[in-house]
This record gives sequence, C-alpha cells and structure tokens, in this order.
Amino acid sequence: MVNTKNKSIIFVKRPEDYPVAGEHFVLQHTQLAPHLEDGDILTRNLYLSLDPYLRGRMDGIEGAYVPCFYLGKPINGYGMGEVIQSKNPRFPVGSLVFGVITWEHFSLIPPAFNNLIILPAAVRNSKVPLSWYMGALGMTGLTAYGSLKLYGNLKPGETIFVSAAMGAVGHLVGQMAKRQGLRVIGSAGSDEKVKILLEELKFDAAFNYKSGKPIVESLREACPEGLDIYYDNVGGEHLEAALEVLKRHGRVVVSGMIDDYNRPVPYHIKNLVLIFQKRIKIEGFLCLDFEKELWPSFTEDVTKWLLDGDIICKEEITEGLENAHEAFAANLKGKNLGKGVVKIADL
Amino acid sequence: MVNTKNKSIIFVKRPEDYPVAGEHFVLQHTQLAPHLEDGDILTRNLYLSLDPYLRGRMDGIEGAYVPCFYLGKPINGYGMGEVIQSKNPRFPVGSLVFGVITWEHFSLIPPAFNNLIILPAAVRNSKVPLSWYMGALGMTGLTAYGSLKLYGNLKPGETIFVSAAMGAVGHLVGQMAKRQGLRVIGSAGSDEKVKILLEELKFDAAFNYKSGKPIVESLREACPEGLDIYYDNVGGEHLEAALEVLKRHGRVVVSGMIDDYNRPVPYHIKNLVLIFQKRIKIEGFLCLDFEKELWPSFTEDVTKWLLDGDIICKEEITEGLENAHEAFAANLKGKNLGKGVVKIADL
Repeated sequence: MVNTKNKSIIFVKRPEDYPVAGEHFVLQHTQLAPHLEDGDILTRNLYLSLDPYLRGRMDGIEGAYVPCFYLGKPINGYGMGEVIQSKNPRFPVGSLVFGVITWEHFSLIPPAFNNLIILPAAVRNSKVPLSWYMGALGMTGLTAYGSLKLYGNLKPGETIFVSAAMGAVGHLVGQMAKRQGLRVIGSAGSDEKVKILLEELKFDAAFNYKSGKPIVESLREACPEGLDIYYDNVGGEHLEAALEVLKRHGRVVVSGMIDDYNRPVPYHIKNLVLIFQKRIKIEGFLCLDFEKELWPSFTEDVTKWLLDGDIICKEEITEGLENAHEAFAANLKGKNLGKGVVKIADL
Repeated sequence: MVNTKNKSIIFVKRPEDYPVAGEHFVLQHTQLAPHLEDGDILTRNLYLSLDPYLRGRMDGIEGAYVPCFYLGKPINGYGMGEVIQSKNPRFPVGSLVFGVITWEHFSLIPPAFNNLIILPAAVRNSKVPLSWYMGALGMTGLTAYGSLKLYGNLKPGETIFVSAAMGAVGHLVGQMAKRQGLRVIGSAGSDEKVKILLEELKFDAAFNYKSGKPIVESLREACPEGLDIYYDNVGGEHLEAALEVLKRHGRVVVSGMIDDYNRPVPYHIKNLVLIFQKRIKIEGFLCLDFEKELWPSFTEDVTKWLLDGDIICKEEITEGLENAHEAFAANLKGKNLGKGVVKIADL
C-alpha cells in the first residue's frame, strides 16, 4: 500500500512569452495509485534539473524534437530520485536513479515510462555532491562536453565566444575550452556574472550584454582580431553579432536559442548573407543524439576535471518542490548563476 | 602603337536595391594607353559572364570577400578575351584567356593585374561553344560541381531542393544531383521556367514561387516526406521554407542569397530555432576556395557530361557590350533562362 498523498507542479496554461509560476504552472495536491503493479517502481524524488529547453515543450507543438507538455498534466524533466518501493527487479529499493522525473514528491513509474538509469552505489558516499548530477555531471555537462568534442573542432590558440556564459551549459563550455588552450570570451546579463566569469572562471574576456552597448561592439572590443568559434546558447542579436565578428571559415555550434523561446516573434537577424560571404559553418545538435555514445567517457573525464579543480560546477540550488516553477521562470530570465537545480529532499 | 579608342561600362552610382543600366552603370567612351610596357598584354574581349555576386561588389563594403567596385571605374568580372598584342612572353598573341576581364572592348593589362589563365589551343576548334566557358565550364559550373562534391555529401535516393533552379548555378546543381541518383526539386520565378525544369532538365518536381502560394506549402507538396538537402541560391523566404521542411539532420549548402542582395533590409527569417531543434548543418562556401584544387577534374568531368548529353548548359546570350549592363540588371530580376552571358565579339 502506497501513501497516495502527493504534490505536483501541474502545467495549466501555455505561455505567450515568459511563463509565470501560479499562472502557467501551479503546485497542486495530487494522488498516487494505491498499489504497485508488476514492473512498477515508486521513487522519492530528490533533485530536479531546471533546463531552458523545457520552455519549448510548453509551446504545444506536436512532433517537435521533444514531446510537448499537455495542459492539466505535470511538468517533467531530468532529475534524480531514490527507489523506495519496487516491483521491478532491475530497480532494487535504495537505488539512486537519474533520468526524466516528474516534478512531484513521489512518482509511481510503470515500466513503459521508465527510462531511468541507476547511478553507481558509490555515488552515495562520493566526494561529488549529488546536485552535480543535475549540472556538470548531468545533461548540461554532457551537452557541453559532447558538443565541443563532436562539433567544436577546437584548436589551441583559437578564440571562442560563448553566450549566456554564466548559464548552465555556457559556464562549462567556457571552462572546457579554456582547458584546451583556447582564448575564451563570454557574455552575460549582469556585472555580477561578468565578474565571476573573469575572476572565478578565468575567462579571458567577458561583457555585460545588457550594458546598453550593442553586442557587436562589445564583442569586437573583446576580440579585435576576430572570432574562430561562436558557441550559441542565445540566438537573436548574439548570433547576429557573432556572424559579424567571425573570421572567414568561422564556425557556429548551436546549443540553444533562448532569446527565441520567449518571444512571440524572434529577433530579426539581418546579416545571414555573411554565411556564404565568410564561408561560415553552422551546426545545431541535441545531446540526445550522442548521450549513449559519450556517457562513459564524459562521466570519467568530467568527474576527474571537477575533482582536480580544472573546472568548477557553478550551481544555484532552490530548496523545495513548491519553489520549482518559480525558480524555473526566474532561470529563463537569466536570474541564475550557473546551473539551476531544485532540491526536493535530502537523500 | 595601340588604337586608344575604347568603350567601357563604368560604375557611377551605388544602387539601393536593383541596379539600373544608365543610372548606376553607364557605357562610356574611354581611352587606352598608347603603348604597351614590358609585361603588358592587350586583349580583345569576347565574352562576359553575368554573375549575381557582382551585385554585392556594388555595395562598396571595404574588406568584403571580393573587392568592391569604385565609382568612376569600370565593372569587371569573369570573362574571356583574345590576346592581340603582347609584351609578356607567358601570353603569346593569339592566346585565348579566361579570368577577370574588364567590361570593355579592349583591355591593356599590366602584369600586376593579370590573373588570366590561357585556355588550351584546342578550345578554338572544339565542339564546345566558347560561351560555355562563361557557364557550365566556367565559374558557375565549378561552383555547382565543387560545392556538391565538397559540401553536398549527396547520397542516391535523397531529396534535394534547389532554389533559383533555372539560374546559372541552380540548373547545373539540379542536373548534377539528378545524375547522382537524387530526387530533385526546383523553384523558379515563372511558369515557363518550371516547364523547362520539368520537361527539358528532368527535375522530379518544380514550382513557381511567384504563384502566390507560400513557398513552404509548394515545397511540402513537392516533398511530403521531407527534405534531406537544401541548396540555397536565394536566402530569405526560401531558406525559411526549407528549414521548415528539412528532415532532422538535414543540411543546407549556401551558394548565394540573391534575395538579400537587392533589399535594403533582408527578409526576416523566423524559424532559425529549427537549426538546433532539427540538428541542421548550414555551410556557406565560395568557389574561390576550391578553384585551384578542383579545376582539372571539373573541366574533365563536366566537359564529358556536356558532350555526352548527361547535362545541358542553358544560357541566355546577349549580343554587344553596349547591352551588358542592361542584361545584368535583368538577370538580377531573374529574367534569364540559365546562365547570362554577354558576347562582345566573335573570335
């Protein structure tokens, strides 16, 4: 018999631009089924990963690259839980699981919806905080690691520009590129973030794109010799500025375009003609495409880099499921320093 | 002693959008220097190639990918001439030369400005018309051939969409892709062009993008199963439609964006977010980058394909230097069927 009382963050209205906690998604009392069927597991959820791509799922476009959210149903996304009851021999009670988790205290997961992976038992007593599995050791870390490896074609001495450089992916991309001997430039939305980029994360240059100065001017000043690579998390005016400053045969790795998610009409980029005039290569990717292939080397490499202090995992942890939607909405507006994580419960 | 009387097409005013013969470039009587210095050659110019990229050179942007035109100076571009006087042992009198030619009857070319190549003597008596060296056997042919070879990564059975498919590059790209076993879709700006694409050039599908129907609808109807490759000559609404219809991991080869050249403000493409959602790769190129490397294999392959009737070189020949600027302006508006060529004089 399962305690059937639960709380979940329910998606109730499609946002036009930025989602608002309490309006587009709300905390509700919900019910779990009273019994586990064969194959079911019950998890106690511990951590949620706040990822900008979830905003795209709110648009309700069927057939998009990830399933959309449905009205009246809970939000889900990457997270971590502990198996507390199990009728599935693959998932013993006590397993720590990682994967797509519903935003609720407890989840009763039938086998058809169970895509969770079991983290090694050593994780419980490791020097690595569990929250890092939401960030540098989770999908955002893999996104940074895999995209640089497969699409970045980084060469020491090159200059890379990372937008949303204090974001979940951006701050890892910058540090990983720096580790490989590149000159790293970042943009961020506040002077506080710029300070962290320069002083703590050792970026070679960084600027506040909300300073009032056109992005293209700040970027030109940061690399008068031009840019080899633009790592795009933002799109819009950032992409336009990068195209302007890229060298011939420059390349763009497109990890996201957060500027487009929250606008009814995207920014008008006016210099796409530079793509052929400068022979620019632009590649989009999703970490779904390489997660299986790269997961083992990623986990090994990045755990080592983190424990050696080669890279730092910046995270902003919000306590409590009841604050998850508010924290997500704030993240979309760039309020977070590093990776946004919700801690639902202690292990 | 050189006959110093000459006529040239002079660039006199930068156009805002479409250039107009008589307003932005004019025919003028000009003068040649009376004597050849050591190293000089005098050419009698025979053919001019009308290429959309020349429009970009009218914008006067210093440091662009090709030098801009200067006010008061003649237009130049790819063309063919015959050496009629020479003080340069590399260029004997009677040589047929190909390369950047000034738009005038005669050109006195000092060594510093001489980038011409000498065509084989056999060209004089070949089955291949000289005008083809402006088209399928010139830079437009090399553009089509090299870009498909280096960036297209064509696989038999794939579907490719070519915009401006009756244009100089487009009609060759379509036929070359067809030759390699792809399903080929083309867009063009008139029903007459669509008819030629379907009946003469054997495209699998073609549509008139000026029919009033949104391009994205015509394209979806032509390939309900989606697109593997978009070969972009146009940019703007064509590129937006192609992004919409491309399959996941689709690719875009950007040869030109003629839609952008003639607008003060480019079309607003609103779905760039699909680049990462569908993991699309976009690559721009210029044939300058591979001309040396590919010229020999290109000449051999394409001459054979043309003589075997595998591909057809469509060209629209305008007679007389005095009509060159008018013909170029008309070409930019898509008035030509195939490659635009000006014949200045018979061999």
